Amino acid sequence: MSAGDANPNTSLNNSSSKSDKVPAMNGPSPAELRRAASYPYGLVQPLLTDQYQVTMAYAYWKSERTNDSAVFDFFFRKNPFDGEFTIFAGLSECLKFLQNFEFSDSDIAYLKTTLPASTEEGFFEYLKTLDCSNIEVYAIPEGSVVFPRMPLLRLEGPLPLLQLIETPLLTLINFASLVTTNAARFRLAAGKEKVLLEFGLRRAQGPDGGLSASRYCYMGGFNGTSNVLAGKLFGIPITGTHAHSFVMSYGGLDEVKNRMLQPADESKPPVDFVEICIRCREKVCQLIKVLQEQTHEGELAAFISYALAFPTGFLALVDTYEVLKSGVANFLAVTLALDEVGYKAKGIRIDSGDLAYLSLCVRDIFKTVGTEYSLPWLEKLMIVASNDINEETLLSLNQQGHGIDAYGIGTHLVTCQKQPNLGGVCKLVQINGVPRIKLSQDVSKVTIPGRKVVYRLFSSEGHALIDLMQQVDEEPPKPMERVLCRHPFEESKRAYVKPRRVEVLHKLYLKNGKLCQTLPSLEEKKQLVQDSLDSLRHDHKRALNPTPYKVSVSDRLYHFLHDLWLANAPIGELY
Amino acid sequence: MSAGDANPNTSLNNSSSKSDKVPAMNGPSPAELRRAASYPYGLVQPLLTDQYQVTMAYAYWKSERTNDSAVFDFFFRKNPFDGEFTIFAGLSECLKFLQNFEFSDSDIAYLKTTLPASTEEGFFEYLKTLDCSNIEVYAIPEGSVVFPRMPLLRLEGPLPLLQLIETPLLTLINFASLVTTNAARFRLAAGKEKVLLEFGLRRAQGPDGGLSASRYCYMGGFNGTSNVLAGKLFGIPITGTHAHSFVMSYGGLDEVKNRMLQPADESKPPVDFVEICIRCREKVCQLIKVLQEQTHEGELAAFISYALAFPTGFLALVDTYEVLKSGVANFLAVTLALDEVGYKAKGIRIDSGDLAYLSLCVRDIFKTVGTEYSLPWLEKLMIVASNDINEETLLSLNQQGHGIDAYGIGTHLVTCQKQPNLGGVCKLVQINGVPRIKLSQDVSKVTIPGRKVVYRLFSSEGHALIDLMQQVDEEPPKPMERVLCRHPFEESKRAYVKPRRVEVLHKLYLKNGKLCQTLPSLEEKKQLVQDSLDSLRHDHKRALNPTPYKVSVSDRLYHFLHDLWLANAPIGELY
Repeated sequence: MSAGDANPNTSLNNSSSKSDKVPAMNGPSPAELRRAASYPYGLVQPLLTDQYQVTMAYAYWKSERTNDSAVFDFFFRKNPFDGEFTIFAGLSECLKFLQNFEFSDSDIAYLKTTLPASTEEGFFEYLKTLDCSNIEVYAIPEGSVVFPRMPLLRLEGPLPLLQLIETPLLTLINFASLVTTNAARFRLAAGKEKVLLEFGLRRAQGPDGGLSASRYCYMGGFNGTSNVLAGKLFGIPITGTHAHSFVMSYGGLDEVKNRMLQPADESKPPVDFVEICIRCREKVCQLIKVLQEQTHEGELAAFISYALAFPTGFLALVDTYEVLKSGVANFLAVTLALDEVGYKAKGIRIDSGDLAYLSLCVRDIFKTVGTEYSLPWLEKLMIVASNDINEETLLSLNQQGHGIDAYGIGTHLVTCQKQPNLGGVCKLVQINGVPRIKLSQDVSKVTIPGRKVVYRLFSSEGHALIDLMQQVDEEPPKPMERVLCRHPFEESKRAYVKPRRVEVLHKLYLKNGKLCQTLPSLEEKKQLVQDSLDSLRHDHKRALNPTPYKVSVSDRLYHFLHDLWLANAPIGELY
Repeated sequence: MSAGDANPNTSLNNSSSKSDKVPAMNGPSPAELRRAASYPYGLVQPLLTDQYQVTMAYAYWKSERTNDSAVFDFFFRKNPFDGEFTIFAGLSECLKFLQNFEFSDSDIAYLKTTLPASTEEGFFEYLKTLDCSNIEVYAIPEGSVVFPRMPLLRLEGPLPLLQLIETPLLTLINFASLVTTNAARFRLAAGKEKVLLEFGLRRAQGPDGGLSASRYCYMGGFNGTSNVLAGKLFGIPITGTHAHSFVMSYGGLDEVKNRMLQPADESKPPVDFVEICIRCREKVCQLIKVLQEQTHEGELAAFISYALAFPTGFLALVDTYEVLKSGVANFLAVTLALDEVGYKAKGIRIDSGDLAYLSLCVRDIFKTVGTEYSLPWLEKLMIVASNDINEETLLSLNQQGHGIDAYGIGTHLVTCQKQPNLGGVCKLVQINGVPRIKLSQDVSKVTIPGRKVVYRLFSSEGHALIDLMQQVDEEPPKPMERVLCRHPFEESKRAYVKPRRVEVLHKLYLKNGKLCQTLPSLEEKKQLVQDSLDSLRHDHKRALNPTPYKVSVSDRLYHFLHDLWLANAPIGELY
């Protein structure tokens, strides 16, 4: 077997383990079975963490600090893709992970092999007792537009436990938020009326990179995916027709077996569909001025085969040989033939060449043929474009003008080529009631201490005006009342704001191991992304030089932050 | 529960499913249980594919082409990272997937919901019978240096089945090869003697992106990872000490509970370690000219706590407050204290600032203190550097000079920031014994038709000279005999080569559902990466303007390719 490179304790059922590192067990534990039964099939488990979280946990345990009460903020420092907004995603997966948090016996056995022999047994007993029932999770709803420096999550609970869960939460949120944001940007660039399909599985960063991308691209505004498993697991619409290899696999018409097609009107007898297609090709070639010899017969055979299998879903990839002289002619031959027996074709896909030019040419041809045969729907046939499309391609296509209805997008979307990570971090902001600040010569790396909550202030037009971060025990800002919003670091930057509406962004999601909110469905999160983006002024969202959206602090938080900063900053020396 | 956004059929045990889309089943099927038990826990399954593979399969089935015999080549078109080599990885996972290939009942039930109602039942019965026992897989050994256009895999078998497995194989190989290559480049840049640690989990593209990165970075030349689960699953060495938050969580020395430390000599009684550290800090501050008030007391407390937990593994993160005035002074205080009770500290980690400058300063301080106290090992303490390190950082550090022994590398390594995908493709090259060529105006996209095998020709110095692609039924090139190697597309580029040694790169790995080769362990693959890279001349591997390594074709393959090209190329028209 190919398990040559795997630790023999990999499998759930390690009763046959021969390793002497980890003791054999009698089959999978209940925790392991629960893991295996949930997507992504147990990959997200307590050991999906950095080893330093474990060593720190031991040092805390030795120091009798296991019940120290800590507060961590999860935030990021810069919006991705040179943009001025980010979509927060991954919260549901975090909550699922926290609710199921439990070290299995084999986890503990493995950890023992990684720590010094002097490590006290009591520590492992402590690990075995750990769950997340004494953690409180405050968070912004998944799908919201968020901005740098605001806590997406505020985690409150025992210090060592918060350390242990830091890495998995970062792993679950960083990529989810990044790829959702990317998808939302593609949606903004394409416009609301276009169909966006995610085709990225083969280029994704591994199987789960592909699955996560399919899920979160859908949430970010895509209409569907090519990824079948994502369809099965998440209920996302899936889509797909055929590849170049399908066209290349046909050499000629004699390779079409089962030439008979049942007309849509079931009272009629089956017809020899190949014959009709050959006849239609003659007509089409004459009409669109293409020599019949230029149309590739293998391509026609492939299209006929596909239409025989999917008479109600005929969408053909037309660029295997030559788009205008061969692909489109063959497509139209089959389309007219389908029309004769009562079926409507769906359209074409172009996967190479000048997409703007070709799509306009094809639209013209569709119009010519539709007019000639009095088939007005022909002009409206769907044109799908694919081939290395990124956000800039979409913007450039819009500028040039094109005839494309739908885009199939892979590599750039799912790997987030422009910036493959969000860089979210998780920082300690309070310990045993005492605020903590992380200083840095780089102001963007200074943390804002203490327990905080964020309010979004809206204008009378319904637009988000500014976000205001306060200490949790401050009076919330009130609609129609003036509130002072300060830049967190620049003293002179202040503004009075009189919001029409105030929304508190943070809600309590988890307490005593129980969810405190009904979690939205994927469709609801998808809707929130669009609503949240709609509430943002256009200039914050535009691709070129967008206006930064301001995240301010209350006057009290401003002073709290700066007093603590001064108290902690070392005094330099000059000689 | 947080499964709000998941299809209720997600779980393995879907007997309680309430969805009417997929019928309820009596618990997981044997196929599903096998999936769940193997890493990556069933994510890699037949449905991890593009929907068009399924629709094509149906069209083939309708066309009675299920037994058509196809050959697909898996290859890529361009080396990543502006380099001139790539490491092939992911083969073991592909073989594991193929050996376990089987549609489960719930897969079939799901597929039925995605295809038109007119889809014939016989197709689903056909899918149920599918396994990979009639596929032959020829491949280059995992860990080999490979180059554009050569088939990494040659897949032979029934056409629809090869289509169905195309996407999962691409998903398994593309990222694996990309990140292994990236790691190998970091290793080349750092030099063989440095310690390279992968710290990327939190920035990876999802949980499996992180796990895959840990596994393949190790294979590519890294020494270990921070990822605990990767350690457990793959037996990779794991490593970790503490974070800034650990340091920040301590306000002062009174927070150190359990101050007593058992000296290394077990016959001696425990000592008050905090007291010794305070005394040592006085000495150190005087010696390295730091005011005691400049050293942060919380930081000292954190270091002491860590040393109390890991007296044999004390490695401290020294940049939470100020590296030279606080971090290093506190570190040395604890190091000297540990020495007094018989333990040797390990070293420091720096996570910000000018890594070259700081590491040299710290090395100087270590030397000063080591000399003063006659502790020569002190000068050799390990200096670990982290903070957004990429290949260019390593090269630049080497140029500047530095005192770093080990690097902790995350984001750039695991997300392959410079180029987040390899772009590997899988193309049809033969069908029912007839070669197929994919033409394109872009020559780099023209495929080389037919069944091929690649030989690597070595010089008398042991270096790889050139790779030679031939048709499978050609006589292999012989050592010490002249062979004509041709550029595949440029007629005038030809060379006679007289190799000292000839290695055939392709081996048969899978036939009749059985492995035909013993698969190497992860350690063996790691070794092959280094051996394979060692056989490559330096100029192919250098970071700046590397020399392209040539992949040539035999004279016969050259003519075969060009004859077929001419026969298939459409004749243009000029008016």
